[in-house]
Amino acid sequence: MIRTPLTQRLGLKHPIIQAPMALAAGGKLAAAVDSAGGLGLIGGGYGQSDWLEDQFRAAGNNAVGCGFISWSLAEHRDLLDKALGHDPKAVMLSFGDIAPFAGKIKARNIPLIAQVQTVWEALAALDQGADIIIAQGAEGGGQGLKRATFTLVPEIADNIYRLGSQAILCAAGGIADGRGLAAALGLGADGVLVGTRFWAATEALVHPNMQDAAIRATGDQTIRSTVMDMARQRDWPEGFTARVLANDFIDKWHGREAELAEKIDIIIPQYQKAWEAGDIDMANVFVGEATGLIADIQPAAEIIASMVEQAEKIIRKQQGFIQ
Amino acid sequence: MIRTPLTQRLGLKHPIIQAPMALAAGGKLAAAVDSAGGLGLIGGGYGQSDWLEDQFRAAGNNAVGCGFISWSLAEHRDLLDKALGHDPKAVMLSFGDIAPFAGKIKARNIPLIAQVQTVWEALAALDQGADIIIAQGAEGGGQGLKRATFTLVPEIADNIYRLGSQAILCAAGGIADGRGLAAALGLGADGVLVGTRFWAATEALVHPNMQDAAIRATGDQTIRSTVMDMARQRDWPEGFTARVLANDFIDKWHGREAELAEKIDIIIPQYQKAWEAGDIDMANVFVGEATGLIADIQPAAEIIASMVEQAEKIIRKQQGFIQ
Repeated sequence: MIRTPLTQRLGLKHPIIQAPMALAAGGKLAAAVDSAGGLGLIGGGYGQSDWLEDQFRAAGNNAVGCGFISWSLAEHRDLLDKALGHDPKAVMLSFGDIAPFAGKIKARNIPLIAQVQTVWEALAALDQGADIIIAQGAEGGGQGLKRATFTLVPEIADNIYRLGSQAILCAAGGIADGRGLAAALGLGADGVLVGTRFWAATEALVHPNMQDAAIRATGDQTIRSTVMDMARQRDWPEGFTARVLANDFIDKWHGREAELAEKIDIIIPQYQKAWEAGDIDMANVFVGEATGLIADIQPAAEIIASMVEQAEKIIRKQQGFIQ
Repeated sequence: MIRTPLTQRLGLKHPIIQAPMALAAGGKLAAAVDSAGGLGLIGGGYGQSDWLEDQFRAAGNNAVGCGFISWSLAEHRDLLDKALGHDPKAVMLSFGDIAPFAGKIKARNIPLIAQVQTVWEALAALDQGADIIIAQGAEGGGQGLKRATFTLVPEIADNIYRLGSQAILCAAGGIADGRGLAAALGLGADGVLVGTRFWAATEALVHPNMQDAAIRATGDQTIRSTVMDMARQRDWPEGFTARVLANDFIDKWHGREAELAEKIDIIIPQYQKAWEAGDIDMANVFVGEATGLIADIQPAAEIIASMVEQAEKIIRKQQGFIQ
């Protein structure tokens, strides 16, 4: 077992948080992660209130948390109240200003997790009293900005130290196995947030065609773009892009966004249909560069067990390097 | 001391290679790194034959190597012969096909180091018999592609293992202190290649204004672009970008490359003049995201000593996490 300030603060067995991936991370996945000793987070997504209720129900008696997209939550403020009504183990906020929500979460003594993509955002989140900072690099799947995990984590660690803050720091983006966990600890993180590896779990709400494509891909085949969110009508703020596997749709539209915007009324229903059918030539597989490290679809419990076992082995092996 | 297959293969004290940064990495820096127990590499640059001779002379009796930009070396093939005439400790090739040069280097029994930016390129370099693969993430300073260090290193490690290759693997991009070294070892690397931290060494050939700007910056302020190489008349192949500190020049031209191309005859001499004068509003500071981890200009020997000391401390501390 690997014990860190993160496991102590949240009462976890392992310093592993499962990313609240919109649509993919439902109650079943979050519950499996909780049962296995990590922190499971339901993906609060884009304002689907009924779906969120269903997923808390699917999590059963497990102690799971919930994550929201801050700019979207600002348009669906009742969702936070609904989530708080389930007495979540933690609430995570990503992508946007957390100030409108931080007070309400902290007033309930629920751990507030803020995912940030820059040093600047980390400082803002610390100022709002975030208990846990997730430093997310752009190698991660789905939405993000530009900084890389390898430098963002230690630079935020330096700022937490400089401010005398008691905040806990986790690394996100590119972590899919025990090597990523060991490296994150080396960079100064107290734990990791894992997306793509849990997206490729048996409990994830992901079309099997998409999971099959992910385990065959290398990280070289991923790309950051905005055209998928145009086709899905997700109105992300300027600057954000999402990492996906490149496919025919990317080849056709990436770099031709203005033309896509003109034809978007035709594209939207086509994309929706392709998504539901698992047509991976048109619909995109939302995974990070770590897709190249994933060779099979596993239950969340096995993912966690092998990640921790491998990290322990690496940490022990590194002792032998010192002479 | 940290001993790995890299230190054994090259007879180094520390598993640290200094990046052969064009223009910045001269003989004095490479010699200082060699004296301190790392591998120092003169930056072979863009075909300046006299400069290269001067730098080998400046390295004195130290055992230093040399690094070339492969696509540029193809236009100045005599440079490799000149470098080999100095019996370099190693030759590193980056950015482009190494096939035209690999045979000549290996025939002399000089260790061949290939820096790659994708898994695909790593496979090609292994096929050409590279002894050491440097997996370079896009968080690094100067030229690069898109993959991040955090995922590129383990994915290439998996491929080296799968092929049964004896090649040694190093991580590059984002490594500026002992945390980066410890993390790279955790990801499966046998050592690190360090650019920006040595660029900010007292021995580097860098204008003091630029070094001053770098130690004040955060990694958030860096950006990948092509406009600097347009202004410097460096004709990099499609796809490559360089990471620099954003400045007035970037604000004005990044994203307006076609317009810059039209005015380039006026811009080129202005940029050259700004470069020589250390005018950092126009000329760019070529550093990676790790600039946010660097707070002072140090001699190379101190950089190496503190990097190794910090990594050892981290590796020992991590033992305490296992329970």
